[in-house]
Amino acid sequence: MASPEIEALTQALARLPGLGPRSARRAVLHLLKKREAALGPLRAALEAVDERLETCATCGNVDTANPCAICADPRRDPRALCVVEEVADLWALERSRLFPGRFHVLGGRLSALEGIRPEDLAIETLVARIEAGGIDEVVLAMNATLEGQTTAHYLADRIERFPVRVTQLAHGLPVGGELDYLDEGTLAQALRARRPVS
Amino acid sequence: MASPEIEALTQALARLPGLGPRSARRAVLHLLKKREAALGPLRAALEAVDERLETCATCGNVDTANPCAICADPRRDPRALCVVEEVADLWALERSRLFPGRFHVLGGRLSALEGIRPEDLAIETLVARIEAGGIDEVVLAMNATLEGQTTAHYLADRIERFPVRVTQLAHGLPVGGELDYLDEGTLAQALRARRPVS
Ligand SMILES: [Zn+2]
Ligand SMILES: [Zn+2]
Repeated sequence: MASPEIEALTQALARLPGLGPRSARRAVLHLLKKREAALGPLRAALEAVDERLETCATCGNVDTANPCAICADPRRDPRALCVVEEVADLWALERSRLFPGRFHVLGGRLSALEGIRPEDLAIETLVARIEAGGIDEVVLAMNATLEGQTTAHYLADRIERFPVRVTQLAHGLPVGGELDYLDEGTLAQALRARRPVS
Repeated sequence: MASPEIEALTQALARLPGLGPRSARRAVLHLLKKREAALGPLRAALEAVDERLETCATCGNVDTANPCAICADPRRDPRALCVVEEVADLWALERSRLFPGRFHVLGGRLSALEGIRPEDLAIETLVARIEAGGIDEVVLAMNATLEGQTTAHYLADRIERFPVRVTQLAHGLPVGGELDYLDEGTLAQALRARRPVS
């Protein structure tokens, strides 16, 4: 029987998406065999993330500062706001370096199946940011999935009373595609050809 | 662009067996979204393993004590020694609770393909333990793979000069099967029906 410490680590790893109990045990074995090369760096990386990172109260990005570097950057266009489902989508767009404005992370998308309702997402804070003024365009950069598009339509309805142009990423995204999986070229094209929400 | 802290964590996770760059990024996102429920416990579990566990200098087991609880347990039969490839195999056998003796972890198996030679495994310490005396039976509990069986034959040759009975797990293990994947019933049967190495 492995020690309680090993069981606890196996269980913590098994709860990560993509790892089951079997691969978690293999990962633990690997960490125990490579303490200097694998366990040490993973521990240090987790500690750094846990101690240094916080969630930006303005946009939901994760960064070492709050407000985050993007929100605090005076060179970013304050009039353009890009709404994304997840922090990973923000990172994907930042890698393309094509969006000059700021972001708003919803923290998910509406899903009847998973019981995710508007109040479970950062929608009130989005509305408040737009209501506060100074924003000309809101880009709804949801995933090209049914749930992503449902979320985009819901948001378009919620903000249509404000004097802002509401756009979404151009079609050209592969159907069912998720932003975080796209190459930068596709993403760049979709962003350049963004169009008003009909 | 994600912060350097996030990149470092993603890379450390991506190096685990069973996780690639894509699933590592998903895991990081999950950890960032569930800081209390996932990141905290994983960090604590890694710290506990890193700080409390050491490798038993006698048998190669990983435990909070050195010598490990199995080596230090006076109720374990000192005359029976079970040789396994990996710590996970020791755990698998301990879960079956059927082996009353002690263990010796080789740290792998001979492999021409991967260039793993006898001097890369804990074979000299095994020979020394047998040479020191007091052991009546050595169970070679290698995996039922070609490399495992090659290793068992090599070990049988190395220890045939000592007055010990050398046995191996009974056939009945599925061909190509690895100990760590077997149900306890199969493992128990194979252990009970162990036979002398021919
Ligand atoms: Zn921010
Ligand atoms: Zn030991």
